[in-house]
Amino acid sequence: MNASIITVGDEILIGQIVDTNSSYLAAGLNAAGVKIHRIYSISDHEQSITDTLDEAIQSSDIIVITGGLGPTNDDITKKTLTRFFGGKLVEDPGTLSLLEKIVASRGVKLSSRNRAQALVPDNCEVLPNHFGTAPGMLFRREGKWIVSLPGVPYEMESLFTKEFLPRLKKETELPVRLNQTICIAGIAESALADRLKNWEESLSSEVKVAYLPSPGLLRLRISVSGDNYDHLNEKLNNLTEEASNIIGHRKVFGFGQETLETVIGSLLVSKNRTLATAESCTGGYISKLITSVPGSSRYFRGGVVAYNNEIKTKFLGVGTDALEKHGAVSREVVEQMAKGACRELNSDYAVATSGIAGPDGGTPEKPVGTVWVAVASPHRTIAIKFQLGEFRDRNIIRASLNALNLLRIEIIEDPENK
Amino acid sequence: MNASIITVGDEILIGQIVDTNSSYLAAGLNAAGVKIHRIYSISDHEQSITDTLDEAIQSSDIIVITGGLGPTNDDITKKTLTRFFGGKLVEDPGTLSLLEKIVASRGVKLSSRNRAQALVPDNCEVLPNHFGTAPGMLFRREGKWIVSLPGVPYEMESLFTKEFLPRLKKETELPVRLNQTICIAGIAESALADRLKNWEESLSSEVKVAYLPSPGLLRLRISVSGDNYDHLNEKLNNLTEEASNIIGHRKVFGFGQETLETVIGSLLVSKNRTLATAESCTGGYISKLITSVPGSSRYFRGGVVAYNNEIKTKFLGVGTDALEKHGAVSREVVEQMAKGACRELNSDYAVATSGIAGPDGGTPEKPVGTVWVAVASPHRTIAIKFQLGEFRDRNIIRASLNALNLLRIEIIEDPENK
Repeated sequence: MNASIITVGDEILIGQIVDTNSSYLAAGLNAAGVKIHRIYSISDHEQSITDTLDEAIQSSDIIVITGGLGPTNDDITKKTLTRFFGGKLVEDPGTLSLLEKIVASRGVKLSSRNRAQALVPDNCEVLPNHFGTAPGMLFRREGKWIVSLPGVPYEMESLFTKEFLPRLKKETELPVRLNQTICIAGIAESALADRLKNWEESLSSEVKVAYLPSPGLLRLRISVSGDNYDHLNEKLNNLTEEASNIIGHRKVFGFGQETLETVIGSLLVSKNRTLATAESCTGGYISKLITSVPGSSRYFRGGVVAYNNEIKTKFLGVGTDALEKHGAVSREVVEQMAKGACRELNSDYAVATSGIAGPDGGTPEKPVGTVWVAVASPHRTIAIKFQLGEFRDRNIIRASLNALNLLRIEIIEDPENK
Repeated sequence: MNASIITVGDEILIGQIVDTNSSYLAAGLNAAGVKIHRIYSISDHEQSITDTLDEAIQSSDIIVITGGLGPTNDDITKKTLTRFFGGKLVEDPGTLSLLEKIVASRGVKLSSRNRAQALVPDNCEVLPNHFGTAPGMLFRREGKWIVSLPGVPYEMESLFTKEFLPRLKKETELPVRLNQTICIAGIAESALADRLKNWEESLSSEVKVAYLPSPGLLRLRISVSGDNYDHLNEKLNNLTEEASNIIGHRKVFGFGQETLETVIGSLLVSKNRTLATAESCTGGYISKLITSVPGSSRYFRGGVVAYNNEIKTKFLGVGTDALEKHGAVSREVVEQMAKGACRELNSDYAVATSGIAGPDGGTPEKPVGTVWVAVASPHRTIAIKFQLGEFRDRNIIRASLNALNLLRIEIIEDPENK
């Protein structure tokens, strides 16, 4: 089967937002064994939508449309699709009750504008949206699947994976395609490619390997395709193990959707240990990542964002002599920050950062991108210096992820945890 | 004039990368007064490219193609365009000498693979690429402009703005299109639409209004088009002022690319004031936002992520009696956190949060999504309770942005700052 993706929205056509939905959908459809024919981004006009739909229906078995389902006047996808497929809008009781629940959870009343979100074409299957007011709509015509999803990414993602894909997989015979993602930190894309070169060259043609880099992290996706699920599954497991062994456990931190913060959370829970943070240049990003994990209050004591040196001294007990002698961006200070966080916040582990995120503050000895990271654990404190790049945002992300990976290794290798 | 954008590359269609080029091009063309008809993403196959080109030429005056110009076998755009326009490939001396210069600057020799990059169709105008090996190619046919640019973003951007746009502007009379974005916090999309309903209905047809929501924020884009720049500019300014007045200054926090954290940074710098944070449920996200602004060390003292109640008491001086009597998620505690942050971190302002981000920890009296936010300023401390939704990630974002908007209002309305 093949598919076209249509993202609707003037905000895309004037370049105000980058369309990330089509990339998400393309990856999901490909993983399910559906080839993408084309991606279209078009404007919020009835003629644009119907012209594109006419065209896509000629070339594709599946058409996924996102956007244009909001409650305001510029959102016309629903009205257009209803007309295109010759239906009429009716109030759907299931959608209305879901809508009332969502609106109530936000502590507001259902306005007439929001109530109109419960109107759906009478000739589609409604896909319930548990995260927002616009339901998904699935039309089936002559063996083709046409699905309309909201443009808000997390609403679209949930409807696509939990409502649309299961229906598609149940009723069609897609080729078996399995993939696994290895989550990696602490190595650059080109270095990883060099390390995996011989292994990649040994792979047969039904195995595909893709490098998915993002600042501070890399994901390696291994895909296998064929007919027999069990055979493919075993093959994929073997390939994943081979690649992971070549990359090494200090760099491979997880698989699939795992993140450094979820992996660290699981480790701390299983070992019954606690964590604190002491951040300077990362400005709270590490504690933000740690606390994004549900249940992190079980092991996260808290943190200090010690932007000003006085805060480093007052809250973390960093010596003014160390600050004067070595400067805030130094092994001595970052180690004192980590030890101070363990002591003052009463935690087993602490992670600390001090660096020059940029764009200002660099010197010839300590240029922008110089970052010290330390981890204090019950049996030792270690610090590593990283020389990152020139862009503030990326430096903050990379410093935080490097720090978390160091913390992960220290927890795993801690002799008291074995 | 109108345009279509075609981005070529299998990596887009399998969802491996997000296509950011089309957004850049769309913004640039719109700013130049060119309306985008459609954006296509297609695969690296000759048939795909020629089919799409046939179609785009029917509908558009300008076609910008990116990608598929690299030196490897999967890059076929140049070959395809040469054939499509009935030319043949010839070595271009100007391109060759630029190529030799670029290759030399990278410290390598010109390989035969790279030398082939100097082959260009004999029926196009070559646009010199100073940053990479693939030149741009401009074909003109019956008043239409078809330009092919490399897919590497900074090469594409440079060729588009420095080579293509100047030629287009010189030879065509483009209409003027201007737009402004109003940045808004503290109101839901449907409530804003209700508030602006009468105003929207009064607008003439050459004015377009679009709502761009994201968790905790809303952007309202107003666009005007016509012939006279000065007239349109005045009209856009008037419309922006009208809408801003209707929405109100407590909700309108900025314009264009401004964010709450940049606006707060500018306010603190101009008033020579400092800031600290005391976060519980937002887990460091507020300080992460504040410190994402270059130069924030001028006004940001630091923060405490007081996840555990002991930290609230030890670092911020929150009374154990208040914690016991009212619980951590209460007006009393969040006010003490804000005041404690000002006092202990020695800042003029402090913002504090305490709430139940979820998914666990809710009670009938304080369900998931209950968040108290406080701002302490030199003349008073105020606290507000928000009832947010059920999703942890969004609750953290919305609580943080609500807190920052409250801080912004308190700084602006602070009698000592007037």
